[in-house]
Amino acid sequence: MQKKIEITSELLNNLIFSIEKKDNSSVLKIITEMHAADIAEILENLPTKEAQLLFELVDQKRSADVIVELDDDLRESLLSDLTSKEIAEKVIDNLESDDAADIIGEFPGKQQEEILALIEDAEHANDISDLLTYEENSAGGLMAKELIQVNENWDTKKCLKEMHKQAKNVKKVYSIYVVDNNKKLLGTLSLRQLLLSQSEIPIKKIIKKDIASVNTGESSEAVANIMNKYDLIAIPVVDRHNRLIGRITLDDVIDIVKEEAEKDYQMASGISEDIEANDKIWTLTRARLPWLLIGMIGGVLGAKIIGVFDIKNNFELAFFIPLIAAMAGNVGVQSAAIIVQGLANNKLKLDGIINKLMKEFGVAFVNGIICAIIILGISFTLGYNLMLCITVSISLLSVIIFAALFGTCVPLILHKNKIDPALATGPFITTVNDILGLIIYFIIGEALLI
Amino acid sequence: MQKKIEITSELLNNLIFSIEKKDNSSVLKIITEMHAADIAEILENLPTKEAQLLFELVDQKRSADVIVELDDDLRESLLSDLTSKEIAEKVIDNLESDDAADIIGEFPGKQQEEILALIEDAEHANDISDLLTYEENSAGGLMAKELIQVNENWDTKKCLKEMHKQAKNVKKVYSIYVVDNNKKLLGTLSLRQLLLSQSEIPIKKIIKKDIASVNTGESSEAVANIMNKYDLIAIPVVDRHNRLIGRITLDDVIDIVKEEAEKDYQMASGISEDIEANDKIWTLTRARLPWLLIGMIGGVLGAKIIGVFDIKNNFELAFFIPLIAAMAGNVGVQSAAIIVQGLANNKLKLDGIINKLMKEFGVAFVNGIICAIIILGISFTLGYNLMLCITVSISLLSVIIFAALFGTCVPLILHKNKIDPALATGPFITTVNDILGLIIYFIIGEALLI
Repeated sequence: MQKKIEITSELLNNLIFSIEKKDNSSVLKIITEMHAADIAEILENLPTKEAQLLFELVDQKRSADVIVELDDDLRESLLSDLTSKEIAEKVIDNLESDDAADIIGEFPGKQQEEILALIEDAEHANDISDLLTYEENSAGGLMAKELIQVNENWDTKKCLKEMHKQAKNVKKVYSIYVVDNNKKLLGTLSLRQLLLSQSEIPIKKIIKKDIASVNTGESSEAVANIMNKYDLIAIPVVDRHNRLIGRITLDDVIDIVKEEAEKDYQMASGISEDIEANDKIWTLTRARLPWLLIGMIGGVLGAKIIGVFDIKNNFELAFFIPLIAAMAGNVGVQSAAIIVQGLANNKLKLDGIINKLMKEFGVAFVNGIICAIIILGISFTLGYNLMLCITVSISLLSVIIFAALFGTCVPLILHKNKIDPALATGPFITTVNDILGLIIYFIIGEALLI
Repeated sequence: MQKKIEITSELLNNLIFSIEKKDNSSVLKIITEMHAADIAEILENLPTKEAQLLFELVDQKRSADVIVELDDDLRESLLSDLTSKEIAEKVIDNLESDDAADIIGEFPGKQQEEILALIEDAEHANDISDLLTYEENSAGGLMAKELIQVNENWDTKKCLKEMHKQAKNVKKVYSIYVVDNNKKLLGTLSLRQLLLSQSEIPIKKIIKKDIASVNTGESSEAVANIMNKYDLIAIPVVDRHNRLIGRITLDDVIDIVKEEAEKDYQMASGISEDIEANDKIWTLTRARLPWLLIGMIGGVLGAKIIGVFDIKNNFELAFFIPLIAAMAGNVGVQSAAIIVQGLANNKLKLDGIINKLMKEFGVAFVNGIICAIIILGISFTLGYNLMLCITVSISLLSVIIFAALFGTCVPLILHKNKIDPALATGPFITTVNDILGLIIYFIIGEALLI
């Protein structure tokens, strides 16, 4: 039984030490039994030079699997040391068509053709070249061509014999697809059914017909949603004539589910590109600057608004500007997050916008009353002028209710207009709510104080 | 081939109309061919009374699958109409042990025993009762007991025969687990290997030994991470003597991966419980109030800080309070989000905190310089006093750098102390950064203006 590897600094230091001393046998002792995913993790945590030396020591059979697991940057750097011939033989030949196509797709067009021409197995090369024609974020771009298919006119005996042949090229067998003479997908035969059936029964009799399939053009997110909703481990991909051309497995989709959820979080945090902490400074800057600029425009508008009111003679109003702005922002972000996640999980689509607003009004009203009473008590106790305390308290209640309704409405409206509602969360909602919160505060302040 | 169902308001209205007219044949026509997950989605979008009437029309075989797909609230309400006997026969008998245990686990202890006693298949009842002893968020709580296991001493022929027997109880067959005479897990036999092997070869010769397994006590998140890292569709669960006792499939884990990512987002948005837009007003209020109170404390501190400085004679400083506070908050949230996601994806664990800070300093410096120059230009153009413009510009640069470093440090420190770093994002970071931003602004303001 393989042990789970904990990749510690100690392990890494040992490896670096052995690599630098060119003590290959010690290095091999450490990595020989390791899973490709663990080797990939180690490579990502080594300096580039050491990573290159270590990668050269990985046996040919596993190096392809290691390459698949790596981050784009390191993969590019390790592959750039190999010739097209080595890439074809060491890497591509040992991968299923979907992973192979993903890797070849990262090379410039000319080298793609060069590598494809060097692949020994013509069918494999054809499969990959076919996959390269699909959009990356579509079912076609996700699928693998390797699958087991049987004809509806066969019986279970012939079926087992044919599967025996096909299984040589398929690493993971989860479903057996049944097609007619024109390759049109009719249904599946589960391995369980095959195990349970008597020999020599016609396939037609045990085929399971009510199965889900997706079209090559379906978006990755739609594929992930369908597989998740129907608890599918694998799903067949068909062309527009319903001919079976590939299959997608759940492990290829799990990262999409994760990235979707993470993307909403990134947008809510004011990050406009899919970045990682390891990216370069300029990439990180570029992803963050746009939202900061929006915040800045908001800040300048805020300055203008405060300038409109007579702050000079009511300078005490300034004390609670941060409170009002912060609460407006916080409430808006909360409301928007609930709506964005609800939309992402398909929990909201049939509810009317009016119902949502009524409910949000209820939540905001309860929270607002509680906060308003507390702030009235605290500010009065702290010795602020009573009219100022009342102004802050009433403003806070109004701002909380307003910000909640605004935070609810905006993502719903964007969604209705087919714009990603996550855009509304984060800096945009915070900024707008800041400004509107200030306006409410100063209007109430002028009415009560002046 | 089953069509994908689009659940539209029109479809729902038709259903409600037919249900109210007690036109059962029309209702059945609509739902007969539907997947359980689609029926569940429809039920969740119907008024409670109509949902109950519709659920009664679902055939016995599918009603168990429908129940599994429902949200907790609706499930509870539909099940409360059934007797323990009906629950045992209609629902539990038709489910695999993991889903059955999840549902029984929602009943009070006494009714749990009542239902268990009414399950016809004693082994099924035993399996469920065993699963109920594990923590909900552990491998034991996730696993199903149904699996196919063979003895290392059998040959492939005997193996196929035994699998034939066992497959009757297992809905999804992905792996065949090989155990020794003491039920200790030795490895797996893939269906592919079995298809490829000659008959009557000893299992020992084709067993795949280097497989990952998890212990019953492993957390759900750890299971999800392992399955995701090693691209596993199913993973065996063992007890502390390495005896095989269950298996977890990827479709049971995908929701955990999703919830993990969503939880970080919720915390960043200032929501302290796992809530959904459909929850009750009081639940929603309770989840949101704590963070609003933190924001309020921050606001009061902000008022105190502003009061310390001579705002009366430098009232113009008040104009840019919202700008400084908003930018401090935005930058802090961005930095923290990058660290939190990096930690969640295991991308950071080996990098030193110093490196992270240096990089974050670089990003903040570039963003800060750009923002400082822009605000200097804008504010001067708008006619504000030059010294005020310079104050705002210098403060903004300082605040951006400070907030970025703070937003980076806090989650890293929390993580090091085994506290969920997501706690640091959202209102907490925003609030602290607001306050520290104000202090920086007023100190610089006093130095330059007074």
